[in-house]
Amino acid sequence: MKRILILGAGRSSTVLIHCLREACAKHGWHLTVADISEEMVRAKTGPDTAHLKALAFDVHNSDQRAELIQEADVVISMLPASFHPLVAGSCLHFGKHLLTASYLPDEIRQMDAEARRKGILMLMEAGLDPGIDHMSAMRVLDKIRAQGYTLTGFETFTGGLIAPETAADNPWRYKFTWNPRNVVLAGSGHVKFIQEGRYKFIPYHRLFRRTEIIYIPEHGYFEGYANRDSLKYLDVYNLRGIRTLYRGTLRRPGFCRAWDIFVQLGATDDSYQLEGVGEMTHRQFINSFLSYDPHNSVELKLAHYLGLDLEGEEMHKLQWLGLFEETPIGLETGSPAQILEHILKKRWSLQPDDQDMIVMWHKFDFLDGNRPRQIQSHMVIKGEDASESAMAKTVGLPIAIAARQLLTGQITATGVHIPVTPELYGPLLDELKGHGIDFVEREVELTPTH
Amino acid sequence: MKRILILGAGRSSTVLIHCLREACAKHGWHLTVADISEEMVRAKTGPDTAHLKALAFDVHNSDQRAELIQEADVVISMLPASFHPLVAGSCLHFGKHLLTASYLPDEIRQMDAEARRKGILMLMEAGLDPGIDHMSAMRVLDKIRAQGYTLTGFETFTGGLIAPETAADNPWRYKFTWNPRNVVLAGSGHVKFIQEGRYKFIPYHRLFRRTEIIYIPEHGYFEGYANRDSLKYLDVYNLRGIRTLYRGTLRRPGFCRAWDIFVQLGATDDSYQLEGVGEMTHRQFINSFLSYDPHNSVELKLAHYLGLDLEGEEMHKLQWLGLFEETPIGLETGSPAQILEHILKKRWSLQPDDQDMIVMWHKFDFLDGNRPRQIQSHMVIKGEDASESAMAKTVGLPIAIAARQLLTGQITATGVHIPVTPELYGPLLDELKGHGIDFVEREVELTPTH
Repeated sequence: MKRILILGAGRSSTVLIHCLREACAKHGWHLTVADISEEMVRAKTGPDTAHLKALAFDVHNSDQRAELIQEADVVISMLPASFHPLVAGSCLHFGKHLLTASYLPDEIRQMDAEARRKGILMLMEAGLDPGIDHMSAMRVLDKIRAQGYTLTGFETFTGGLIAPETAADNPWRYKFTWNPRNVVLAGSGHVKFIQEGRYKFIPYHRLFRRTEIIYIPEHGYFEGYANRDSLKYLDVYNLRGIRTLYRGTLRRPGFCRAWDIFVQLGATDDSYQLEGVGEMTHRQFINSFLSYDPHNSVELKLAHYLGLDLEGEEMHKLQWLGLFEETPIGLETGSPAQILEHILKKRWSLQPDDQDMIVMWHKFDFLDGNRPRQIQSHMVIKGEDASESAMAKTVGLPIAIAARQLLTGQITATGVHIPVTPELYGPLLDELKGHGIDFVEREVELTPTH
Repeated sequence: MKRILILGAGRSSTVLIHCLREACAKHGWHLTVADISEEMVRAKTGPDTAHLKALAFDVHNSDQRAELIQEADVVISMLPASFHPLVAGSCLHFGKHLLTASYLPDEIRQMDAEARRKGILMLMEAGLDPGIDHMSAMRVLDKIRAQGYTLTGFETFTGGLIAPETAADNPWRYKFTWNPRNVVLAGSGHVKFIQEGRYKFIPYHRLFRRTEIIYIPEHGYFEGYANRDSLKYLDVYNLRGIRTLYRGTLRRPGFCRAWDIFVQLGATDDSYQLEGVGEMTHRQFINSFLSYDPHNSVELKLAHYLGLDLEGEEMHKLQWLGLFEETPIGLETGSPAQILEHILKKRWSLQPDDQDMIVMWHKFDFLDGNRPRQIQSHMVIKGEDASESAMAKTVGLPIAIAARQLLTGQITATGVHIPVTPELYGPLLDELKGHGIDFVEREVELTPTH
């Protein structure tokens, strides 16, 4: 009996577990789901069956780790990314396949030769972003190159948002649908990309003012800001020589302007602990970043400091979050970023019936002889509710499908991979389409700029 | 014969060496000066005498370190601060006094008990800033407290500038008179202080817009921006309960507004390497932080991006630095901060005849019963030339005096210290006055704010 082991039963594992439970029942395989919280894993699996076992698991317990991995054929790690090298080491030791939805770290990249020798596949970056972004982009990039056209530009944006039906009164049109900490810290550091053959760099404190507007037919307007380092995709996607390369994140229009207030204040800084947090209210948190002035309100000081309209949309967004209220924060200590995350969670947590929405958009520019042409491609997926979310679907399904294709012999690659080769992305994208995860592709008429 | 050992003969050691050479000749002591570069040390000492020896020294050579420290009575380390724990360890081992002008690191703080047991003094932060700032502030703070007044506020600013006579055409009224790298990175991170009993935090990208104007009689106007963490001085100066505590850096008015351009662009970022540096010109360096736009000049894009007047003072300051010129940078690789430093050195390096100027200013607010009173105190020191600079004087003299007072028995403290106690700062400040390093103190009439 073939055996699949899932490590980690958090938010992003829901659809993965459901899907592989069905596959195991159908194929006569066995699924083990292990998580640090037995309660959490049990809630997602239901009672044990002949084909399913749930158990508590501590990744630091090397005996248990060895025992579980040793009896599996495929290991899927949905643990926090920092644990993956540990899990990968055990998989390599026992010669077991490994699948994850996280970025490939150097420690695992270096396991390639030995993974090949042992005939196992370590497929990383096989979720949504990274994952479906690679597969869907590479399919079009490879097609354009196969036709002999010259690629000149590639831009790609992904966003985890909420569906228009959800929380219609929320002026941000946003809630946390993914790790809130990553959302609060998004963009910190600096940004690198190429535009028209020129390297471009944006510091964090300017990022949310350097946005692009993107229109997606039937879904309307979005705004995009740049991700950290687009340049590494020159090699990942084999794009050396391309004139424009830009990866970004999507939000609804107006989000970035308002988020920039937090960045400007320093409220997203995670590098130091704030003083006096225990006695602090939301309003005092904001005031701690403003100059002392007993004659003016926090609202007026903020508006003046950052050049905001006191009655404008940005101030309304902050008011809606309760940031000007004398509400105790409810933490004893914290960095500015930790405190901001805590305050935002009060309004930005998904309610059980909320539907999230994943939006992915690619733009490919290329030369057909001398003629510039452009293809745009997009995917929009809505969740059912907070549990069967679009995020859980788009992260879990590619992994579940890859696990099944591995066990049925459809995937035969060995070594360390990310899904950028036709052998990997082809069958995966084909099956994802059957689950409604599909891209709309169109050629866009180019009009010369004046 | 008593023996003094100076480790490090860089820019800040010039006056220190001269002063101790005289003291050794007078008292019949011996001075050894050791530096990684024998050429540099020889240039500062001249030929060896009965009282003076110069030699090449590598701090990582533990045999040589042991040998030199073992034969000294007082060790003065002017090495980069990161080497001090290593030197301090040897001093502790052999029971030798240590003096430095650098911040006290935790590793040395922990040597206190053993230093007391061995009867040695490890006096850190005994230069200018840290050093004279501590001594001069504590003298006034202690005096105010001794009279039974209640301290309500303390602000202190120091700047290493150029004298008004120097480089009159330089619109920044600034050159590098100290470690250029530290100047370029100044303020990075975040800032903490207290104002009127409220904790205040400023992120780096706002720091150079949150300046104060300071007037010093006979020397005119300066602008000050906040140093990193003023809060740690609550304990260092025993100021718990004070309502305002602010430490900052002085520049000439207009400097910060223009420097902020570099901060806003991301040109002071030291966290990553820029691409394509080898082929880059000054102009292209600036352009790499601006959006792509083939229809507008770099000047226009910059002015528009940061809301600058195209003909204004800030743009003039950048032009004067040659930042819009197609001059090759002259580096092969580098972070934005390294490249900016390299470009700035072309115009901001001290010429041999240039005179620098040290400005230190303190403001003390206190209650005399119910009556608010204020004392201001300042020191302005000009250099003779680039070698006998005000910086070298104000860093070197306190250390030289402390070394002499140690060897003549005027200083008897043992353990790890910084000069904040009357036993240490009293005799040091008295002697500094004899060298023209003195503060002008005045009580300022307070008028109620409207």
